[in-house]
Amino acid sequence: MSLFSVIQQPTLLVNEAAARRNIARMAAKARSAGIAFRPHFKTHQSAQIGEWFRDEGVQAITVSSLAMAEYFASAGWEDITLAFPVNLRQMEQINRLAAAIRLNLLVESLESARALSAGLLRPVDLWIKIDVGANRTGIPWEAEAQVAMLAKAVNSLPKLRFAGLLTHAGHTYTAGSPEGIRAVYRQSVERMNFLRKRLQVEGLTEARISVGDTPGCTLSEDLGRVDEIRPGNFVFYDACQLQFGVCGAEDIAVALACPIVAVHPERSEVVVYGGAVHLSLNPIAGIQPPAYGLVCLPENSGWGAPLPGASVRGLSQEHGILRVRPEDLPAFPVGGLACILPAHSCLTVSCMRGYLSLDGEPIEAMP
Amino acid sequence: MSLFSVIQQPTLLVNEAAARRNIARMAAKARSAGIAFRPHFKTHQSAQIGEWFRDEGVQAITVSSLAMAEYFASAGWEDITLAFPVNLRQMEQINRLAAAIRLNLLVESLESARALSAGLLRPVDLWIKIDVGANRTGIPWEAEAQVAMLAKAVNSLPKLRFAGLLTHAGHTYTAGSPEGIRAVYRQSVERMNFLRKRLQVEGLTEARISVGDTPGCTLSEDLGRVDEIRPGNFVFYDACQLQFGVCGAEDIAVALACPIVAVHPERSEVVVYGGAVHLSLNPIAGIQPPAYGLVCLPENSGWGAPLPGASVRGLSQEHGILRVRPEDLPAFPVGGLACILPAHSCLTVSCMRGYLSLDGEPIEAMP
Repeated sequence: MSLFSVIQQPTLLVNEAAARRNIARMAAKARSAGIAFRPHFKTHQSAQIGEWFRDEGVQAITVSSLAMAEYFASAGWEDITLAFPVNLRQMEQINRLAAAIRLNLLVESLESARALSAGLLRPVDLWIKIDVGANRTGIPWEAEAQVAMLAKAVNSLPKLRFAGLLTHAGHTYTAGSPEGIRAVYRQSVERMNFLRKRLQVEGLTEARISVGDTPGCTLSEDLGRVDEIRPGNFVFYDACQLQFGVCGAEDIAVALACPIVAVHPERSEVVVYGGAVHLSLNPIAGIQPPAYGLVCLPENSGWGAPLPGASVRGLSQEHGILRVRPEDLPAFPVGGLACILPAHSCLTVSCMRGYLSLDGEPIEAMP
Repeated sequence: MSLFSVIQQPTLLVNEAAARRNIARMAAKARSAGIAFRPHFKTHQSAQIGEWFRDEGVQAITVSSLAMAEYFASAGWEDITLAFPVNLRQMEQINRLAAAIRLNLLVESLESARALSAGLLRPVDLWIKIDVGANRTGIPWEAEAQVAMLAKAVNSLPKLRFAGLLTHAGHTYTAGSPEGIRAVYRQSVERMNFLRKRLQVEGLTEARISVGDTPGCTLSEDLGRVDEIRPGNFVFYDACQLQFGVCGAEDIAVALACPIVAVHPERSEVVVYGGAVHLSLNPIAGIQPPAYGLVCLPENSGWGAPLPGASVRGLSQEHGILRVRPEDLPAFPVGGLACILPAHSCLTVSCMRGYLSLDGEPIEAMP
């Protein structure tokens, strides 16, 4: 029986070979630069897929929530960075986890550092979150005195081991071109090293630098003077990364297989079972009118290349509306399947919470 | 212990009193018009909240997936419309469910009707999906001959009982004003009655009309010549409905309580634990720059009114970025909580899959 004959509802397919290639390439790049590779597991959220990283020598990981840290700790990961400003309302879980594994946390204010220090039962490694220009969170990189003050405080507070400076240059996602992405990455590394020098002047000579976003880490041939990279999305990539010029279509390792439920030849549209609750409402950056994914056809061994001129033009809760070229319409019969390359694979994974391999085997993810 | 002292992570609060008021109001409106009320349960997806509807005399419901139909069937609902073009890949589940309850399905093409008829083991009630202008799915209302042809075919195919014409006037969501919404609703009802007359000419005298969108059903004082309404969102409403003028802030019955993890006074922003995986990436329609929710403060008995000039200006996977007025910033301490009124409550519920009542009791939803 073919892979596609068994699919009854929206199903997230994962191409293991493509994902393993993506992992191997990033691991090799970090290794050859002598930089620690601590991939972000929020993208795949699967203990089984985590093993594909272990096969490439990965031993330390990044996550975005305590629940995710607990999930991967129970899958045997013993060195986990929770790359999110510490949530002081979860001290109990933090203490439980810090007793079991090497837990690395993040702060960006003295009050958080003090409260954390007071609430901890055991020591943790603590990073200071720096904003190198993404404007999401972290201490602005220009505020060097504030960073130095916090680093010294962290260094002196009980149960906190100052680990270094950590950033996420999320503005590579709006840099507009591969050269723009490389420039943002270079500038981020410079800004982090500027701060590290300032800390060295203050006597904090051991500060490490952790960076990591998929566009920057993929496109920059020289990863620069950093100690650790933490990209996540690269394991699967997606239609946004393709649009940015970060990956090729053949590197995209997940696709949502969706049953076709209606066809509207008068507007060359296809309605699939597969909506915002499956794909997420993330649009592909830089495309107008909005498109929420690219459209492919199933093939025996997986899915084909994105069809030219086709996109997911609308999503409601369970409906996806695909616009395709009129000449492609016959390939979308009611009762058939369409494969959608998600705009943002991390969010699609988070909606779907499980995969089907191209061999037809279920792959579990965090519940 | 107060409700808010126990919250450690993003938590969807539901105000039962407000939700019950919303249900009672819509049920009374349908009852006084002599119209069947078949609320859409995709909004709340909770067997327990379903009981609040039963208390108002509701006996028949609408859902958007077979899994949801199975969930509510197992909670004792025996008359369920799956308001989604039939997915021919789920014949096995359809047959299982049709053996247990009165299952009402939807088609919009002859090929679907024929395949369904051939695959069914027991009869189902079948509605024809009409597009009255939303341009999502359904047979365009102008194609009266096509509708009549399909209705006659359904009427003659084995195991299909022709129920009538069903539509969702989703374009009330882009109508721009309460008067615009009322006009779209009136026009939709007219178009459905135009088609019903055509069917009567063809000898199909029993065709019912089912409509239902929250803006139209809430704002139209006269529901018109229809047999059934199927609104769903009204149970909770949300920031979009508030923006449309469909509800008041006091009618919004859900809010996402989010731990505050960082404050950035220099741009008057607050970072919360609560992102796209909790709220969904739905923006509030008609607001620029994009806003993904409104911001309230916790109060002992629930949450307060939306703060003027405050909104969720950005969401990443787990981060929410709130912009607030500088004078309100002291109300958002690190370690505290903010309450977010979601842009689209249906999608937030689908992300969160469970609630906390204002009494601190968990309320389960479909897994």
